[in-house]
Amino acid sequence: MHDQAQVVVALSGGMDSCVCAALAVRDFGANATAALHISYGQRTERRELAAFQAICDRLQIGQRLAVRTPFFHAIGGSALTDDKISIPDAGPQIGLHIPVTYVPFRNAHFLSAAVSWAEVLGAARIYIGAVQQDSSGYPDCRPEFYQAFNEVIRRGTKEGRIRVETPLIALRKAQIVTLGLELDAPFDLTWSCYGAEDRACGMCESCVLRRQAFATAGAVDPISYASPTVTQFRD
Amino acid sequence: MHDQAQVVVALSGGMDSCVCAALAVRDFGANATAALHISYGQRTERRELAAFQAICDRLQIGQRLAVRTPFFHAIGGSALTDDKISIPDAGPQIGLHIPVTYVPFRNAHFLSAAVSWAEVLGAARIYIGAVQQDSSGYPDCRPEFYQAFNEVIRRGTKEGRIRVETPLIALRKAQIVTLGLELDAPFDLTWSCYGAEDRACGMCESCVLRRQAFATAGAVDPISYASPTVTQFRD
Repeated sequence: MHDQAQVVVALSGGMDSCVCAALAVRDFGANATAALHISYGQRTERRELAAFQAICDRLQIGQRLAVRTPFFHAIGGSALTDDKISIPDAGPQIGLHIPVTYVPFRNAHFLSAAVSWAEVLGAARIYIGAVQQDSSGYPDCRPEFYQAFNEVIRRGTKEGRIRVETPLIALRKAQIVTLGLELDAPFDLTWSCYGAEDRACGMCESCVLRRQAFATAGAVDPISYASPTVTQFRD
Repeated sequence: MHDQAQVVVALSGGMDSCVCAALAVRDFGANATAALHISYGQRTERRELAAFQAICDRLQIGQRLAVRTPFFHAIGGSALTDDKISIPDAGPQIGLHIPVTYVPFRNAHFLSAAVSWAEVLGAARIYIGAVQQDSSGYPDCRPEFYQAFNEVIRRGTKEGRIRVETPLIALRKAQIVTLGLELDAPFDLTWSCYGAEDRACGMCESCVLRRQAFATAGAVDPISYASPTVTQFRD
């Protein structure tokens, strides 16, 4: 049996959300942690779902919910959900503009599902591993977005007491690697690549940001890449 | 061919959203109106989807998107999505507490989908037919909820210029009937009943609020009910 959930953690299966889940378990215990995964029609959804389950297993999180929002395909407008738009390789412009991998307003859907579930579970906290710096510059990864969303929760739920927390948002990506190593977060089970499901490409923005982070932290990334070299576009 | 969409209207197929769609067509024209419907696993989802399509046909709205958020079944906690919780008949306590038909944080999902679609379409307005008075007291039907959501949109989208409008929120339900008649809104095609898909029960909160509204407006509701009498619980 589980304890009553105290926290819902959004767990995509990438390195940031994996560290965020490990933080939730540290702060509330695995029995009081509930993990939410959303398949939104992205290219690598099967691989990410497998990462979600494996990370939950390792962290001993029993309360899990994997949901689908299949309509992003129909809405389109993003390289992650529309096969007609290619995944670009990372370039020196990382983070300076909003790239074609932006999925319109995606994180609002994740938060909404987390709030709905938290309200039924009676959990008062939501953890989400959004990162502002060393990210692709997505608008729904800004602290102001989460602050504003907390006001929506306060006004639009039964008791108004659920609060979203973004424990990683101010960290550099290399600091997240270091924190994850301290927490024994299962990086070996994570999946970050935007395009491939068998072996990470190593060239897309998500792979490059990850590889730079491990290199800067002086740590070894436990997964392997199809492209052997790490491109350093900025420090 | 359609014009570029200027407004996305959330159209459940009930009387309020039908009037809201007629308002969108009045304000922007049918060619610049895009209608969004969400099936969220509610008991009457097939009937509501049929109402959506019929209303769009009558209003000559060509741009349509019908999506599914099937996970509300798994989340549970509401009589609308959980077969183990019965739909109650309306009683004198209508609107005084949050009833078991509350679907946790549901309207945040509707708004999120509308914003995602509007961002790709390039539409700058979202119309939603939320009503505060003469409603069941759901927290996500309060004006403050929509004000706060607009701040989330401003901070969490590419350009931040999409705005949610709730043109009915301050109206009494009878005023919505009168407005709909002025706009020639197709009330005959709408579906409001929470429980039945063949003939409206006439007894659930949604049916009773609707019947009271038509009676107060001195108008004839064009749909028929299984229960012949209208219960007047409050003016």
